[in-house]
Amino acid sequence: MSNAAILVQVWRGSHLESAHRGHGVVCDARGTIRAAWGDPAAIIYPRSSCKMLQALPLLESGAGRELSSERLALACASHQGAQIHVERVARWLADLDLSESDLRCGAQVPDDKTERHRLRDSNDAPTQLHNNCSGKHTGFLMLARHLRASPDYVDPAHKVQRDVRTAFEEMTGLESPGYGIDGCAAPNFLTTVHGLAHAMARMADPSGLGAVREAAVRRLNAAMLGHPLLVAGERRACTELMEASGRTAIAKTGAEGVFTAILPRQGLGVALKVEDGHRRASECAIAAILARLGVLSPQDPAVARRLTPPVTNRIGSTVGRIAPEPAFWSDGTPL
Amino acid sequence: MSNAAILVQVWRGSHLESAHRGHGVVCDARGTIRAAWGDPAAIIYPRSSCKMLQALPLLESGAGRELSSERLALACASHQGAQIHVERVARWLADLDLSESDLRCGAQVPDDKTERHRLRDSNDAPTQLHNNCSGKHTGFLMLARHLRASPDYVDPAHKVQRDVRTAFEEMTGLESPGYGIDGCAAPNFLTTVHGLAHAMARMADPSGLGAVREAAVRRLNAAMLGHPLLVAGERRACTELMEASGRTAIAKTGAEGVFTAILPRQGLGVALKVEDGHRRASECAIAAILARLGVLSPQDPAVARRLTPPVTNRIGSTVGRIAPEPAFWSDGTPL
Repeated sequence: MSNAAILVQVWRGSHLESAHRGHGVVCDARGTIRAAWGDPAAIIYPRSSCKMLQALPLLESGAGRELSSERLALACASHQGAQIHVERVARWLADLDLSESDLRCGAQVPDDKTERHRLRDSNDAPTQLHNNCSGKHTGFLMLARHLRASPDYVDPAHKVQRDVRTAFEEMTGLESPGYGIDGCAAPNFLTTVHGLAHAMARMADPSGLGAVREAAVRRLNAAMLGHPLLVAGERRACTELMEASGRTAIAKTGAEGVFTAILPRQGLGVALKVEDGHRRASECAIAAILARLGVLSPQDPAVARRLTPPVTNRIGSTVGRIAPEPAFWSDGTPL
Repeated sequence: MSNAAILVQVWRGSHLESAHRGHGVVCDARGTIRAAWGDPAAIIYPRSSCKMLQALPLLESGAGRELSSERLALACASHQGAQIHVERVARWLADLDLSESDLRCGAQVPDDKTERHRLRDSNDAPTQLHNNCSGKHTGFLMLARHLRASPDYVDPAHKVQRDVRTAFEEMTGLESPGYGIDGCAAPNFLTTVHGLAHAMARMADPSGLGAVREAAVRRLNAAMLGHPLLVAGERRACTELMEASGRTAIAKTGAEGVFTAILPRQGLGVALKVEDGHRRASECAIAAILARLGVLSPQDPAVARRLTPPVTNRIGSTVGRIAPEPAFWSDGTPL
């Protein structure tokens, strides 16, 4: 981690109070680096930022041939457990003759405020449907059934996860050096920041990936761009940045400070990892890169809220600001 | 910030997922550095970690001559707005013929879960009494009245804040290069990590500070060590680490990754700042330093919970761990 570059600054008054370092890469589908910060070879867990890669076998196997774009968006989602997410995942499971108890992701208190308060007021416990990964897991279950494999689909040796690893390694162009267990109990495969950006660039320009994969990629991209609210939720960075791009770019967050982006029009992929895992920094950094790539306007309120958010005190005064580090931001100079 | 040292690691499986850098100093009352990591000369905002310094003028002026140790502990506190805190601050204000509306700290949703749920169930809004700084502000109000100064006690030009700055600079041994406005609207003065540690060492060994200051320091130390629950609250790091030390050391957190400690028995002071501001790292780092200084046992559950907390997933499995960086921790070798 020694070569991480400062990406984001936190100012209070005229003094720099905190700073966030990290690694970032913008590259094309051949893997050619267009811009990089920190160490492109840094090995990271993509966490949820690679859910679209984990969804590829669902389509490529034929299991998901008939899936609606809404369900495909949910398979790629880190949703906040709102009713719009929970109901759709429940219906998808029911259509498979499965239920919430077949999921292996664990229960999660939803980030969606309305749903959280509803649960509290009705004295209900959050369920596995509320888990931000419940759509991904339902996709895994659907693939497992198609493969006539066991229901223990999160086992790293399970066919579902072996297929995910193969797709992941093909898209990143690198053999994964290993895996860790994600917050949702599924394996999460290691790769480099460059490898993750390369995978996103291949998502952006799948023309050289063969007919089956190209079709799968195009369906997933269209699903995410068609349903930004299902991919994350109200007020969430992924949702708002996709909307702010005029639905021309896909932005996907991952825990511990990861963010990826897919730019189909430019044929570019982006990946970044904030060394300390802080979300305020990964959101600022992805907004900065996407603004420099011309797909976001720094003046758009949804962008400015991440790119240059004020630091306020408890009487509501602005006492500081968060901002991309000057060399990284470079006055917004196009990349 | 370029010389920050890695202090804390976040592992997932066998791979390092995230890391936290920072600066730390252990020194004695003469300012002699016993141990340091990163850059001792890094200039930081102490935030709430220096509340005991901000409380010195309250006692040295004579304004707080009759104050109970409970109220002195609250003047130094970043409390979580539980009933035990809110009721005591309200009574203190009432004894001054003042009320919640005289505070200038702003309202804050309390971190205390019971009180937060009570507010929600009764449809009550949080008040300024719930602000973690309400005790400090009540002390400022008491001092302002004693000085027959205006009620606008958070103005950096106000006599209260000028007296705070003087005490702060005398204790740190450095002219402050400036101030920012804290979350509670009061000015927060810049100093170096070394300067902040030096101030804590003078708190630990006030014998050379003159009779008035020495008496004030001893009263504040006794107040904090006598009432750890009033300084922070249930399950909070400051409270639990002070208890875990057998009430021999004072630990005080500040926002954006700051922690200080006062070790009266050793005559030592500690200050650290995590560059990225993350609390999981500042809590791990202060636990590591205090363990290496022999005032905490790594086996104590309250210590282990900060020093080596597990990373768990949503089905409750341990999938990683947080730990002090090996060179920083040095197998717990005594400092």
